[in-house]
Amino acid sequence: MPSTYRLPPLPERPCLGLIAPAGPPAPERLARLPAVLDTLGLDARLLPGCQGPAHLDHLAADDARRLADLHEAFADPTLDAVLALRGGYGCARLLPGVDRGLMARGRKPLIGYSDLTALHALRDGLGLAGWHAPMPVSDWLRDEAGLDDARHLLRRLRQGLRAGETLAPRQDPGAQALSRPGVARGRLVGGNLAVLVSLLGTPYMPDLRGTLLFLEDVAEEPYKVDRLLTQLRLAGALDGVAGFLIGSFSDAASPDAVLADRLHPLGRPLLAGWPSGHCCPHEPLPLGLALEMDVAGRCLRVL
Amino acid sequence: MPSTYRLPPLPERPCLGLIAPAGPPAPERLARLPAVLDTLGLDARLLPGCQGPAHLDHLAADDARRLADLHEAFADPTLDAVLALRGGYGCARLLPGVDRGLMARGRKPLIGYSDLTALHALRDGLGLAGWHAPMPVSDWLRDEAGLDDARHLLRRLRQGLRAGETLAPRQDPGAQALSRPGVARGRLVGGNLAVLVSLLGTPYMPDLRGTLLFLEDVAEEPYKVDRLLTQLRLAGALDGVAGFLIGSFSDAASPDAVLADRLHPLGRPLLAGWPSGHCCPHEPLPLGLALEMDVAGRCLRVL
Repeated sequence: MPSTYRLPPLPERPCLGLIAPAGPPAPERLARLPAVLDTLGLDARLLPGCQGPAHLDHLAADDARRLADLHEAFADPTLDAVLALRGGYGCARLLPGVDRGLMARGRKPLIGYSDLTALHALRDGLGLAGWHAPMPVSDWLRDEAGLDDARHLLRRLRQGLRAGETLAPRQDPGAQALSRPGVARGRLVGGNLAVLVSLLGTPYMPDLRGTLLFLEDVAEEPYKVDRLLTQLRLAGALDGVAGFLIGSFSDAASPDAVLADRLHPLGRPLLAGWPSGHCCPHEPLPLGLALEMDVAGRCLRVL
Repeated sequence: MPSTYRLPPLPERPCLGLIAPAGPPAPERLARLPAVLDTLGLDARLLPGCQGPAHLDHLAADDARRLADLHEAFADPTLDAVLALRGGYGCARLLPGVDRGLMARGRKPLIGYSDLTALHALRDGLGLAGWHAPMPVSDWLRDEAGLDDARHLLRRLRQGLRAGETLAPRQDPGAQALSRPGVARGRLVGGNLAVLVSLLGTPYMPDLRGTLLFLEDVAEEPYKVDRLLTQLRLAGALDGVAGFLIGSFSDAASPDAVLADRLHPLGRPLLAGWPSGHCCPHEPLPLGLALEMDVAGRCLRVL
């Protein structure tokens, strides 16, 4: 593999390890999954916890089962990547038990977003890259647009990502009053704002100094976005951030005034309106890679 | 004042400083406030930020105005206590600017709950007591039951709280499967779970070792209660807690299974079903005082 690859291409017909480290997949969507995987040209291994039994109603299986699945998926040499079926809540409960050595040895990417932000954060500390990208049960199986997003993601996975490559959204979201001009360079970290903030004060909070911080969220009203960003500020976690990439904040009133109030005083470049998060289309983002963010050009470049 | 008083009685007709350190009070309730205060036998000084102009829609006034009101209320020697009109979100934004010396000198109690948890937490670090209790705009002015709660609170404020006194709810909530037997002693801290957790990782998180931790919340689904309690656990913040007092968790599915999953393994006494929080009746709780919690007796005793 040429050294210019920052995320190497997956095989033309990749084999993915499917896990449910957070919420329980809806059985009727799980039933439709094999046909969709076949349509997309994917092989897959469904780890056992994806089929329950659910724990506390909101967890796909108990912590021991979900953790064992995570380890098994990363250890299995026949799997090219590990893909979460959906988010919800539950990844952070697994963090103390994660075998970091195992994760570091199998350098395969983790794919997912939302609650997966907690696992991406742990992997960031190990220097491991992954994809913030739509997931089968929550997105691909939702409707035809979700399936289009899956096709787009799989093209990207098969191409890999090379140094010098430019990432621009399929649909330009247009000028955003929230953006602040500039060019910033750093490792891309973050994901779901509430999940990232739920790591503050724990040993699993990533070091944000010198990073490009990506943030998205869903169904959080502006006063809650204020609470989350204020916590990051009071903790000093934003002091050394090189630049902000603002994704989708959906299913709530616009948080733009709050984002401006909390982030503009930090004086860093900010690119708003990036279509990643709980939205569709949802552009895949390479977490853990060093990128250049060009606000005027509305794009990211792989360093 | 005899030294047995842990929270000294207020005058028969106390004068209260009214502040809005978080959300904006609804104007139609503010208009009805003077008549209600008179009915209750209270004098009051309404600090200017209570009447806006609102900031970012969800703050009663900008940070500088709300902070000035807080300082003015605590500095004014004619005021016997400082009472927040309502919660919402905003107290944590004020924490870096709070004049701790001023707050420590004027030892008058702070009264309020919900978002006020952030200010109670700061005061806890200064050894200052206060009341977790219903507030005028959000509770007293809501309906007749809210007004009854106000009368109950004012009786308590006029009586003060002495060493040896027992606190038991007006209506016994009955046996709760969530409770865990035992007797625990410690300083009562806490309040709203989400607001307390929003202090994790910041210099304003209270030290919970050796405390009785009171927790309540509103409209947080069980998976979010899981996220909040898991964050406290991963941060090690619950390791030295002497006992748990669980208040009302309203407007969402019961979090009892999650509370048991996250708190029972800690092996500390736990008294559940205490009627304080976003509920009515709402029993006032003395924050910052050393108490004994007797789970079998379903009561608290002032040490």
